[in-house]
Amino acid sequence: MNRGIEVTELFGIGTKYEITCTRRQRLAVVVLKDGRRELYAFEAGNNGDEPSAVIQLDEDEARRVAAVLLGTYFQD
Amino acid sequence: MNRGIEVTELFGIGTKYEITCTRRQRLAVVVLKDGRRELYAFEAGNNGDEPSAVIQLDEDEARRVAAVLLGTYFQD
Repeated sequence: MNRGIEVTELFGIGTKYEITCTRRQRLAVVVLKDGRRELYAFEAGNNGDEPSAVIQLDEDEARRVAAVLLGTYFQD
Repeated sequence: MNRGIEVTELFGIGTKYEITCTRRQRLAVVVLKDGRRELYAFEAGNNGDEPSAVIQLDEDEARRVAAVLLGTYFQD
């Protein structure tokens, strides 16, 4: 299923996944070749190239954020 | 494992998961009772309550973002 995700190969850098959300917000995740992820958040009305916020995640952080998003994160 | 995630119950609203990332960036995910997620991104140096960006995700969008973060998203 590819609905709503645009995938772009960034040669030598990694892969960019761009998700257009409801309310015209955009979220781009760049998966770098070394495993780090960069999260680019574009708020509604921000149609440019300059993100509203950039968050860098290492693999462990990315896994934890994913677990929260999936609802599979539980505390010990 | 609870390293790096602070969980706060927001009475009547949902649950907030706050992740402090490397480089002093913060990411908060609020899982609302109706299944929607709100992503609050705080860039480095933003130590206040006002996020640098807010992105709203429905359940399907949250699943897709999680798959990208986990590296389990594949195109058909």
